[in-house]
Amino acid sequence: MTTDSDPRIGEVSEGVVLRRILDTVGPSAAEVGPGDDAAVLSAPHGSIVATVDTLVHGPDFRLAWSSAFDLGWKAAAVNLADVAAMGARPTALLVALAMPDATRLSFVEDLASGLHAACETLAPGCRIEGGDLTVSETLTIAVTALGVLDGHAPVLRSGARVGDVVALAGDAGVAARGLAVLFDRFRDAAGTPMAIDHAALSADDETALASQLRPKPPIVLGPLAAAAGATAMMDVSDGLALDASRMAEASGVTIDFDLAQLGNEPLVLSGGEDHALLASFPAETALPAGFRAIGRVVPEMRERVLVDGTPYEGSTGWDPYRDWDAHAG
Amino acid sequence: MTTDSDPRIGEVSEGVVLRRILDTVGPSAAEVGPGDDAAVLSAPHGSIVATVDTLVHGPDFRLAWSSAFDLGWKAAAVNLADVAAMGARPTALLVALAMPDATRLSFVEDLASGLHAACETLAPGCRIEGGDLTVSETLTIAVTALGVLDGHAPVLRSGARVGDVVALAGDAGVAARGLAVLFDRFRDAAGTPMAIDHAALSADDETALASQLRPKPPIVLGPLAAAAGATAMMDVSDGLALDASRMAEASGVTIDFDLAQLGNEPLVLSGGEDHALLASFPAETALPAGFRAIGRVVPEMRERVLVDGTPYEGSTGWDPYRDWDAHAG
Repeated sequence: MTTDSDPRIGEVSEGVVLRRILDTVGPSAAEVGPGDDAAVLSAPHGSIVATVDTLVHGPDFRLAWSSAFDLGWKAAAVNLADVAAMGARPTALLVALAMPDATRLSFVEDLASGLHAACETLAPGCRIEGGDLTVSETLTIAVTALGVLDGHAPVLRSGARVGDVVALAGDAGVAARGLAVLFDRFRDAAGTPMAIDHAALSADDETALASQLRPKPPIVLGPLAAAAGATAMMDVSDGLALDASRMAEASGVTIDFDLAQLGNEPLVLSGGEDHALLASFPAETALPAGFRAIGRVVPEMRERVLVDGTPYEGSTGWDPYRDWDAHAG
Repeated sequence: MTTDSDPRIGEVSEGVVLRRILDTVGPSAAEVGPGDDAAVLSAPHGSIVATVDTLVHGPDFRLAWSSAFDLGWKAAAVNLADVAAMGARPTALLVALAMPDATRLSFVEDLASGLHAACETLAPGCRIEGGDLTVSETLTIAVTALGVLDGHAPVLRSGARVGDVVALAGDAGVAARGLAVLFDRFRDAAGTPMAIDHAALSADDETALASQLRPKPPIVLGPLAAAAGATAMMDVSDGLALDASRMAEASGVTIDFDLAQLGNEPLVLSGGEDHALLASFPAETALPAGFRAIGRVVPEMRERVLVDGTPYEGSTGWDPYRDWDAHAG
């Protein structure tokens, strides 16, 4: 036991850590919330949307760059985006935390605070309804997100049809520019991450950094896109070109981006982690506010992605296995 | 790239690893299975049961002792038990795997095979419907299990009433005896785990070892207990005494075990990880086959757990934070 006012989690019981988290994330909105063997969640229209995504110290974040709040926020946001990308409204997160026993209790509390804030901001009504605490040498945050379709059919990747408009809600390439700021300017000669010197950053750099560390995908637009008749939708986690090629392949089509509509962001086609919503709509659809047209669906070609009718030949994005060494820093 | 017939996952694309897993776990039974942003699962009675539990290399398993198949099996079994303990029938697992990039592809395949086999054996109809792959220095398996109540109310920990019979389905203390076999007999002088020498083990030791490495909680008895009118239920993950004290506290009662009915297993009250189902039933209930009476619910006392009317003073079980150093081996 410790007399420290901010003990390490290895010095207190699991119950103390859990209590601190539950106090931070606030009351449950579920039929049965935290505290029993499992949560019981409402699925009023007879189905539920479920996804899981993990943030791992090293490949997915560095503690020199991300605060505990940032980590909680991002772990929530990326999963909320996957639920929204089905056209669903997120209702619950389950959070599996594996942490070194030297982790400070305040760190856990800040992480829980970030999870909670992301839900409150991006997906009002979504709560942390369960989870798991365990010890690990590697800080790992696995979040399961659940959501409901409110009577809509799920919007799959495979529904894009020739003639559809391709539209985007949210940023593309900004989070990757933020990552480049971190890699280029806040590592020492050996490549080790260093603390961020905010005084050295422009407002534009700060925007990019915030997109990388605390992304704000347009979660509420997922159900609105479904209601508006989106034929296909996905969140852009690995870069617009790569994710669009996946949508195109699943749909048996090709996607032709309109360069003039993609904007001036340098990594707009290759940069991942913004978790924008990429969707296709019938050409006559009035796009929901927040979506902008960026291309159209054309008949299947050998190339899955075109830019102004020409095959896209740039980098297609991020593969965590293939790219891990290069990004290890 | 490698010419090795069993490449490391760092040498192949995420798509190759995913394909191998999906081929192993077989077809989806969900409305939308793996391959989109999220799974869509049927919740025919308007609610869903959800839980997550993580196995971490080091505190939760050692690769000298557990095969990849064992790990997959156990990761599934412990989560299926949490769903069953609510009185629910498991329908889907989401599996988040974080693995060193030196992990062999065959290891991932064997792990998926263990996940699949546990579902097939313990919870027929439950499938792996989604997941996530990422790189980590620490092999980590976070499994989310989802289930349906088939119209029953969930069976909480808090429903035990004075006069109820306390009953158990499954083993208690056997898995802990298996862990003791590993710790006592298959570590070197420095405490490092060594390969298991099966020739040195009695049939009884092998039984205990199998309970530790590939537990077989009575998943199908969870919904049967709910249908029979169980007033409270939980799975025994941290030891019968500790988990019964949690049920007693949640219910505002005390639980009195009948020593004669607990059997001869030395760690029956303190040993965790068997994931038996502990339930209370009204006294007049005919217990479902597979449950045996082991005590009764008595009015609340200062002590939460008694044995033959006397306060239980033994070890109450396992706290992963408090006990980690002692168990690190």
